[in-house]
Amino acid sequence: MAREITAEIISIGDELLIGQTINTNAGWMGEQLALVGIRAKRVLTISDDKREILQALTAATGDVVLITGGLGPTKDDITKHTLCEFFGMKLVRNKEVEARVVDIFVRMGRAPEDILEVNKAQADLPEGATVIPNERGTASGMWFEKEGRVYVSMPGVPYEMKAMMTATVLPALKDRFAPPTIVHRTILTTGLGESMLAKRIEAWEDSLETERIKLAYLPSPGIVKLRLSTYADSDAVGAHERVARKATELYTLIPELIFGEGEERLQNVIGRLLKDRHQTLSLAESCTGGFVSHLITTVPGSSAYYTGGVVSYANAVKMEELGIPSDMLELNGAVSQPVVEKMATGVRTALRTDWSVALSGIAGPDGGTPDKPVGTVWIAVAGPNGVQSKLVNFPGTRELVIERSALAGLNMLRKRLLENG
Amino acid sequence: MAREITAEIISIGDELLIGQTINTNAGWMGEQLALVGIRAKRVLTISDDKREILQALTAATGDVVLITGGLGPTKDDITKHTLCEFFGMKLVRNKEVEARVVDIFVRMGRAPEDILEVNKAQADLPEGATVIPNERGTASGMWFEKEGRVYVSMPGVPYEMKAMMTATVLPALKDRFAPPTIVHRTILTTGLGESMLAKRIEAWEDSLETERIKLAYLPSPGIVKLRLSTYADSDAVGAHERVARKATELYTLIPELIFGEGEERLQNVIGRLLKDRHQTLSLAESCTGGFVSHLITTVPGSSAYYTGGVVSYANAVKMEELGIPSDMLELNGAVSQPVVEKMATGVRTALRTDWSVALSGIAGPDGGTPDKPVGTVWIAVAGPNGVQSKLVNFPGTRELVIERSALAGLNMLRKRLLENG
Repeated sequence: MAREITAEIISIGDELLIGQTINTNAGWMGEQLALVGIRAKRVLTISDDKREILQALTAATGDVVLITGGLGPTKDDITKHTLCEFFGMKLVRNKEVEARVVDIFVRMGRAPEDILEVNKAQADLPEGATVIPNERGTASGMWFEKEGRVYVSMPGVPYEMKAMMTATVLPALKDRFAPPTIVHRTILTTGLGESMLAKRIEAWEDSLETERIKLAYLPSPGIVKLRLSTYADSDAVGAHERVARKATELYTLIPELIFGEGEERLQNVIGRLLKDRHQTLSLAESCTGGFVSHLITTVPGSSAYYTGGVVSYANAVKMEELGIPSDMLELNGAVSQPVVEKMATGVRTALRTDWSVALSGIAGPDGGTPDKPVGTVWIAVAGPNGVQSKLVNFPGTRELVIERSALAGLNMLRKRLLENG
Repeated sequence: MAREITAEIISIGDELLIGQTINTNAGWMGEQLALVGIRAKRVLTISDDKREILQALTAATGDVVLITGGLGPTKDDITKHTLCEFFGMKLVRNKEVEARVVDIFVRMGRAPEDILEVNKAQADLPEGATVIPNERGTASGMWFEKEGRVYVSMPGVPYEMKAMMTATVLPALKDRFAPPTIVHRTILTTGLGESMLAKRIEAWEDSLETERIKLAYLPSPGIVKLRLSTYADSDAVGAHERVARKATELYTLIPELIFGEGEERLQNVIGRLLKDRHQTLSLAESCTGGFVSHLITTVPGSSAYYTGGVVSYANAVKMEELGIPSDMLELNGAVSQPVVEKMATGVRTALRTDWSVALSGIAGPDGGTPDKPVGTVWIAVAGPNGVQSKLVNFPGTRELVIERSALAGLNMLRKRLLENG
């Protein structure tokens, strides 16, 4: 097996440390590196401070060190000078880059004689570094080598950095290190928490080792992602087969829990199922307050199958818009099986759709009773074969009750759609 | 002035390094630390690997080391064992924590005898560490001290970590280190982008220096937060007065742009205004697909003033549920002033509320025309004094168009509520 190639990412910028900007660059870079077989093993975020930067460069390990940030024209951007000090290089004006910088400002409408020296100084680059062109801005990237290690400095602006990585850095790293290929597959599950799921698939998980496959659990509210990964070594086809074999076993083991793979979301899966069937959907939401509708409409093109919905927060709306009899509400309460089923059939009839989902529950923090504590939620799905409902209970904050109820409702609809071919 | 107190944040998790999860915890923690006068100077992200974790703990600097992640019940979560090794402690079952874990599962409907050993093992904690209760989950936090440095280990799940930080860790750090007091005030604006806003308040911003006040712009879609901060030194009252004086000037300068302070959100401000007036609200949403309704119902107690809403994705719903005449739709299209105004008055009448907001637009990525490009959105607010509408245009992704339209609709309602005393 080829040697593992590792990378360290150094993100420079005070704004990242005080929560002003979320460091989305590092995750993206880690993902891109993984796709070419390089493992990001550390991300270090530090401030725009010369001593901190020098210390980080000195302590950096791995084959590749990717540095972002601190290349702007303002005073607090000091990465370039610090790199010069670290590599023992001096800055020289790069005429080609200077012409490009001038050209950018001229195209923005600045007269050549009005271009500030501080902007032209962006063409001052360390003598001995390889310049990486910036297609989208004035700060060039820089490629250094020292004692077998590659250091790449890039701007922190995500869309400049991403273009530079894609066009130049990733291909150059592949050429330089010929890293082993890693095969990934991420299987998405819903309906069981992380520990119950782990118990359910324990034997399967134990069997992964002989196939040299690693498994990671990636939980988020209502969803657990299972990521399988393995090195391809010299046999990429074999690695894909090993992963595919284990994935197939998993599909056999927990068919009802798997709703998709990779970046898919439940609402996209449902959208595809509805489109395939030329069917439509409506919603009646109480405790989720429009969140299911929001999820459905995040999908581009959802107007092809989503007709609309009613958010029936007040009982009057449940009665008038959804046709719930007032004695049914009085007898059972709004959070009850008869009411949620009537909500589902009521909206399905009113909006003349093939399918509908209804939710009624207690999102909290107030409104709970000993009988129906916060987190009690009734969910109903109505369709061509009638209406079905179930009671769920999700402990947690108002936000979590809403989120998990919504996912449970979407998952119940997904299963019904699959049962109905 | 007191000595500066510094912190290092160590985020543990493979999912953070390969871009599967964005590390939002670290930025939030840095922001919260800054609010109590502690400066986060490094964030280190590493994988769930014992050697990496030990190395990070050994190399950590600063007065405080905050560690998140790797406390889950599954096999790949190894932080706890590694902490034991680093501090030379052994794990012992904490009976109190075990009882809490059991209680959580019982409340979720699990029989006590069915609770897995792997879940109970969450109560195995390092002997000698101070246990930090987890109000929202089964993994406890741990507080260690070694050679004058404080180490705190917390779960990586953001809502568990945040509750732990707020309730226990931040107050304890303040007690332990008595960092210099920083006076903050965050003023929330909407309606102008960051650079336009900066130009508008340029002279005021220049005047902050003489008062030793720092200003930070914290932009997010549709909202720019302005954070004023100053060291209190030995004069906390004077510092509050300096900040208050400048804040008052800002309120005079841009009254129409300010909607609140601190952690307030537009939907909370609106909730308060409606409650004060004993008035009610309904919604008719097209392009925002239920997102405004979702925002309104994230506020606990919103059922006191929010009656409900209609998501009219299909034209048929606009006609039948909201009473839009079909010739009006044909003549003007769904994204038009007459239709959005009729949506607002229609839902206000149908749901018998004092106020209503309606939105109709093109969220994209498809559906745009030269006349009405993606991002074109009509917004109407109907109330006791009639209906008003306006046309806005937000460039960007589908997600951004939805988010910014929703905020613009809420802000329009807020202004109308204020005009109507």
